[in-house]
Amino acid sequence: MAKLVLIRHGQSEWNLSNQFTGWVDVDLSEEGVQQAKNAGAAIKKAGIEFDYAYTSVLTRAIKTLHYALEGSDQLWVPETKTWRLNERHYGALQGQNKAEAAKKWGDDQVHTWRRSYDVLPPLLDANDEGSAAKDRRYANLDPRLIPGGENLKVTLERVMPLWEDEIAPKLLDGQNIIIAAHGNSLRALSKYIEQISDEDIISLEMATGQPVVYDFDEKLNVLGKEKY
Amino acid sequence: MAKLVLIRHGQSEWNLSNQFTGWVDVDLSEEGVQQAKNAGAAIKKAGIEFDYAYTSVLTRAIKTLHYALEGSDQLWVPETKTWRLNERHYGALQGQNKAEAAKKWGDDQVHTWRRSYDVLPPLLDANDEGSAAKDRRYANLDPRLIPGGENLKVTLERVMPLWEDEIAPKLLDGQNIIIAAHGNSLRALSKYIEQISDEDIISLEMATGQPVVYDFDEKLNVLGKEKY
Repeated sequence: MAKLVLIRHGQSEWNLSNQFTGWVDVDLSEEGVQQAKNAGAAIKKAGIEFDYAYTSVLTRAIKTLHYALEGSDQLWVPETKTWRLNERHYGALQGQNKAEAAKKWGDDQVHTWRRSYDVLPPLLDANDEGSAAKDRRYANLDPRLIPGGENLKVTLERVMPLWEDEIAPKLLDGQNIIIAAHGNSLRALSKYIEQISDEDIISLEMATGQPVVYDFDEKLNVLGKEKY
Repeated sequence: MAKLVLIRHGQSEWNLSNQFTGWVDVDLSEEGVQQAKNAGAAIKKAGIEFDYAYTSVLTRAIKTLHYALEGSDQLWVPETKTWRLNERHYGALQGQNKAEAAKKWGDDQVHTWRRSYDVLPPLLDANDEGSAAKDRRYANLDPRLIPGGENLKVTLERVMPLWEDEIAPKLLDGQNIIIAAHGNSLRALSKYIEQISDEDIISLEMATGQPVVYDFDEKLNVLGKEKY
């Protein structure tokens, strides 16, 4: 049966500097590049052959996908880049240092924004500098779809159509899929796949650059989950 | 009106060692990587914004595309990888050193294979080692489409459906396109675009890693051609 590999992008420059990132298009750090290359080597060693690849429209995930495919000698695999796999949009927190945000709003408030399932961060307006509404890569999206800020619940809701229309049908068809994306868009997918509760999902951590491999039966029940 | 950028992949390891390459999946040389990065910088400097990208299913072209897009801050642009943009298949000559081939078959014969429009090279059988029929990336192709060897005429014929069904409609819609591919698949496209004769096309050389930019009018007549 089909395999699904999820891989969170390697360490980014803002993971390093401890800033809220969200939809800001930050590059991989040097260590992040190395993590992505290691992921490719691990996939090659495991002998997993992909039929299709998905990633977000953010550079750090796209590069992670490319290193993972190149390192496993399958850079030719067809790929789709979609905003539905973007990181959770962090609203007005984007670009802020996490420690400074805690000073400004208090530890409890910032912890709630980071770890609650359904509390929204302070929102960014479409006219604000840094709004995705001004970014050419979202020019073909219905403007109402461009978020000013998201919680994990909203992130899951906009990831799901991709699962329903593209990923699930391919897995049911026996095709192996790789998805290179972000901590929260992958957490959302894992929540659905593993039927994790709203309370428990928040503590699920995905290591940067580490492939997580799901095996499914013909009803898309999880038969196995492995980390490389 | 729309722009089309053609870019031949950067120098490959077999360009360096003077071997016939064709559909063999040879990587870029270090200089080839640098050429591709330079192409990205040139595209960025020119301010060209792409709506869609095409490349072959061969690593050297795919990597060239990715460096060109990343270098111009648009790695998120949707991309299609297709065998129709592959290099001309060089049949049984693939892997052979060009000087040794000249010793074996004579200068005139090898020159004819390299520079005639419609003479086929010695063919590879589907059962031969190195046949594309054994390569997973062509598993979904009608087996009759997998060549044992091609001349420029046949290469042009299998590139054209991509132009007709995908590239021309997008250009007519005002979308800017980048195509990262190979000496002969790009020569084939240029022949059609510029209406070059069977005799003259053979002497058209495309430099590795150098973007060639076409401007079109609303009937897809060429208004300008520029090299960066």
